Amino acid sequence: MSQEIPHELIDRHQATLDAALAALAARDYWSAYPESPRAYGEPVGLDTLQGRELLLDQPGTDGLVGPGPEQGGEQSPFGPALGVSYPHAGDPEALFAAARAARPGWAAAGPLLRAAVCIEILARINARSPEFGTAVMHTTGQAAGMAFQAGGPHAQDRGLEAVVCAYAEQTRLPARAEWTKPQGKRDPLRLVKEFTAVPRGTALLIGCNTFPTWNGYPGLFASLAAGNPVLVKPHPRAVLPLALTVAVAREVLAEAGFSPDVVLLAAEQPGEGLAKTLALHPDVRIVDYTGSSEFGNWLEDNARQALVYTEKAGVNTIVVDSTADYAGMLGNLAFSLALYSGQMCTTPQNLLLPRAGLETDQGHKTFAEVVADLGRSLDRLLGDDARAAGLLGAIVNPGVLQRLEQAEKGEYGELLLAPRAVAVPDFPDAVVRTPALVGLDIARDALPGECFGPISFVVAVDSTAQAVEQLRDTVRERGAMTAAAYTTSAEVEAAVVDACLDAGVSLSLNLTGQVYVNQTAAFSDLHGTGANPAANSAYCDAAFVASRFRVVEVRRELR
Amino acid sequence: MSQEIPHELIDRHQATLDAALAALAARDYWSAYPESPRAYGEPVGLDTLQGRELLLDQPGTDGLVGPGPEQGGEQSPFGPALGVSYPHAGDPEALFAAARAARPGWAAAGPLLRAAVCIEILARINARSPEFGTAVMHTTGQAAGMAFQAGGPHAQDRGLEAVVCAYAEQTRLPARAEWTKPQGKRDPLRLVKEFTAVPRGTALLIGCNTFPTWNGYPGLFASLAAGNPVLVKPHPRAVLPLALTVAVAREVLAEAGFSPDVVLLAAEQPGEGLAKTLALHPDVRIVDYTGSSEFGNWLEDNARQALVYTEKAGVNTIVVDSTADYAGMLGNLAFSLALYSGQMCTTPQNLLLPRAGLETDQGHKTFAEVVADLGRSLDRLLGDDARAAGLLGAIVNPGVLQRLEQAEKGEYGELLLAPRAVAVPDFPDAVVRTPALVGLDIARDALPGECFGPISFVVAVDSTAQAVEQLRDTVRERGAMTAAAYTTSAEVEAAVVDACLDAGVSLSLNLTGQVYVNQTAAFSDLHGTGANPAANSAYCDAAFVASRFRVVEVRRELR
Repeated sequence: MSQEIPHELIDRHQATLDAALAALAARDYWSAYPESPRAYGEPVGLDTLQGRELLLDQPGTDGLVGPGPEQGGEQSPFGPALGVSYPHAGDPEALFAAARAARPGWAAAGPLLRAAVCIEILARINARSPEFGTAVMHTTGQAAGMAFQAGGPHAQDRGLEAVVCAYAEQTRLPARAEWTKPQGKRDPLRLVKEFTAVPRGTALLIGCNTFPTWNGYPGLFASLAAGNPVLVKPHPRAVLPLALTVAVAREVLAEAGFSPDVVLLAAEQPGEGLAKTLALHPDVRIVDYTGSSEFGNWLEDNARQALVYTEKAGVNTIVVDSTADYAGMLGNLAFSLALYSGQMCTTPQNLLLPRAGLETDQGHKTFAEVVADLGRSLDRLLGDDARAAGLLGAIVNPGVLQRLEQAEKGEYGELLLAPRAVAVPDFPDAVVRTPALVGLDIARDALPGECFGPISFVVAVDSTAQAVEQLRDTVRERGAMTAAAYTTSAEVEAAVVDACLDAGVSLSLNLTGQVYVNQTAAFSDLHGTGANPAANSAYCDAAFVASRFRVVEVRRELR
Repeated sequence: MSQEIPHELIDRHQATLDAALAALAARDYWSAYPESPRAYGEPVGLDTLQGRELLLDQPGTDGLVGPGPEQGGEQSPFGPALGVSYPHAGDPEALFAAARAARPGWAAAGPLLRAAVCIEILARINARSPEFGTAVMHTTGQAAGMAFQAGGPHAQDRGLEAVVCAYAEQTRLPARAEWTKPQGKRDPLRLVKEFTAVPRGTALLIGCNTFPTWNGYPGLFASLAAGNPVLVKPHPRAVLPLALTVAVAREVLAEAGFSPDVVLLAAEQPGEGLAKTLALHPDVRIVDYTGSSEFGNWLEDNARQALVYTEKAGVNTIVVDSTADYAGMLGNLAFSLALYSGQMCTTPQNLLLPRAGLETDQGHKTFAEVVADLGRSLDRLLGDDARAAGLLGAIVNPGVLQRLEQAEKGEYGELLLAPRAVAVPDFPDAVVRTPALVGLDIARDALPGECFGPISFVVAVDSTAQAVEQLRDTVRERGAMTAAAYTTSAEVEAAVVDACLDAGVSLSLNLTGQVYVNQTAAFSDLHGTGANPAANSAYCDAAFVASRFRVVEVRRELR
């Protein structure tokens, strides 16, 4: 039943919940978690994480994942092995049984107490942000600054957003309502009705390599806040950030009087293919996934017993028509292409540029001039190795590096800007590269599909009108997480907006300052639309949370 | 874009929209449409409908459905042929092309104007309620009074609820928001963001035989209000109520300046199997369906390109433990079993009764006494043919009659109360029957699956505790649209509530007056839960509407 159960955690977090609910509606900037590392004390070195045993006291544990790579232990993209051990459940049934047993107590807590417990989990994660930042850095290859922010406070923002969104949806109906229907001269009919949000069942989070917390927290916390136990199946290369998350969640749950098995880690040994096994289990009623389109589509096709929320791959396009701030545009574009070596699902890939060049505040610029100027902007941004490494991070896996080498050889098209190896002082084994620019002509070349990593294509088009149609087609056919355009023409702007509404992709227009197309802010921007093949859902709208629970009504006559 | 476009229909219906939004949150009794036939002038005779040509001026029409039965024309369960003609599209592609062409204009209208147009459609349907009542009566077999109310104002209530629910969800995000992020001593980052609800695509409504409007309007109006064109594929035996609906919708759309092809009728000639063809079309992104579990499950399994909302079949259980109002309980139960000859997805089927009898305000009653008293209550309620016909209506199809005859022969178990043929003055060919009661013993008999129609099972159980567990199991395994219980024990009540929350079915407790377990009221009761196999969705919560559109964001720097 959804009566409010008094609890110290509710008192502690009611103000945050209220402020977050207001922020969700207003969509102005809002965050509960400072994004500056200065707010969190000393950074945490990798050495403090290495060699840990995160056994979590989980049921069904019959062995370890890690610490060595041959047992599934992680290796930092910056070089060192992490050497951390995680629990391994030889029989996943033990995890499902534990989740089933944990469910009734968590379901009975009701939306408010669940929200408060979730906010406490996030608060404790927040307090340990330096540790999470280092864990994210050394599993994803993100540079320290980005790993801290995106993997720490910004991921926590997205988690809180999901908690609050789920709370709001679960409380749309009053817990109790009276119903009085007039009957003319006779006494009215009177009923009293109670509405209870009931969880759907066990949820499965399948984590990704590049943003284990940022992309993992929305699904994890939405499911949790809606009363569902969650099995967390991390990406084999990025276990630590989610294992730490599970550890904190289990600690808070137990302290608050719930079974810690409401949240369980399902780490796997090499070659186990555990995600498929778990996803098809009849207990699993919700799956959240971020990763390749291939496996995302497999989940959508096969995990039929579950609601499946996927964020897959797409091809992000920028239409460049004209600009009133040429320098600002180039700087903004260069940053967007360089950030985390383009290893974001939101990084622009195809830049569509009129063959005849464009009008700018610095006069007409030819196609060749724009390419050269963009190259110079990238060189300026990334000329200094230390600064470059702080922006680029490390290449996350050998596949990305291999594609970059192919680009360098001209296999994708004319190499306009060659990538450069960047040295990282503390990590001599880190593989860090500046982005490559490849030139294509739409009159001659087929546009590439997703090419994840630091390779962008500058595509000569006949006209802006053609670019807009290409944007529309690419979004429809390949999917896209983001789109952007630069134009000073109201007419072109309207056409681009129309194409984006039609194809279902969100649009950033004329960004020339410190906001980038690849970044979205919780409580304000939606991440993805769910309206094109790149994702079937968005962080975080009502559709992302409203089906994670169902409402059961109990009605009685009122006399 | 979602700017508000001034329109006379908005002025006309803003007050209704606002009142309905308030009602949706409060869940008290509320309706925009009087339920008394007296509010609507003279009844409409069947003869005024017979022989009509409802051609709708639709694209792609190359022939007729009807008027004769061999061309798909309907025959009233009360006897007469309807002899109405509908348009037939030989190539459904013509309908899809028309829907595609109609979509952009409807999408551009925005949530508010769409809601206003939908409310105008409902208002015109409402004004013609007597005509809709007669159309529903002579396609479903509902008695005149019920056909008028359930097929008219109550269906309109559910339609309006869906409109308003979709409007509320589409406007959760502001149309425009400013975002200002402080940057310490530097100027803040500022963006302006616009959020636009974009429709998902063409929707398909697959209508049912017994409640074409009541079960059809939620999906139809939810999809429509969210900007999706809708193909309406009625049940071959109940075309007229939805064809009239489509006619009104097309008229209002055209008058309001939209393409009438936002709503299209897809009637079929005999043996065409059109629902399957339409449901698998790649344009179809939403399917709403009410009907058999077999076809509902087929849709869920095969219409993979679409969101599929189904209401299928289940087995509704009543646990009878004890009562403080024995007479009221019997009267309420008798009415619930008799109404529309049990041909409701919400009719109780299995009455679980302790073998040892029960405690009542009239003392202890043995199992046999309760069965006899329930039989007497049914006899009293249905003893007079005219009154009985007014409650029972007609048997909707030969399959129901056949099952009843099997029950009469004892094929389902011991016949406790035999059905009786009821004569209907104006319709000598109408097949009208009182309900059968069949006795089973849980110690001996397997409980039956869904047995749609006027057959209920009184099941002897060892104990109330066993009954509660049986309720839980039946809901989980067979699904259920409703559950009910009678008890004076707080402990039993808690156990039943717990079982219903756990298995995911809504519960009516101790109904002894004029509210019945089979009836739900829009704006207050949810119909179904979506949490058990009988349905994957509910009328009408956020989950029913929130995925029928997606949100696209456009953001710009604000200077």
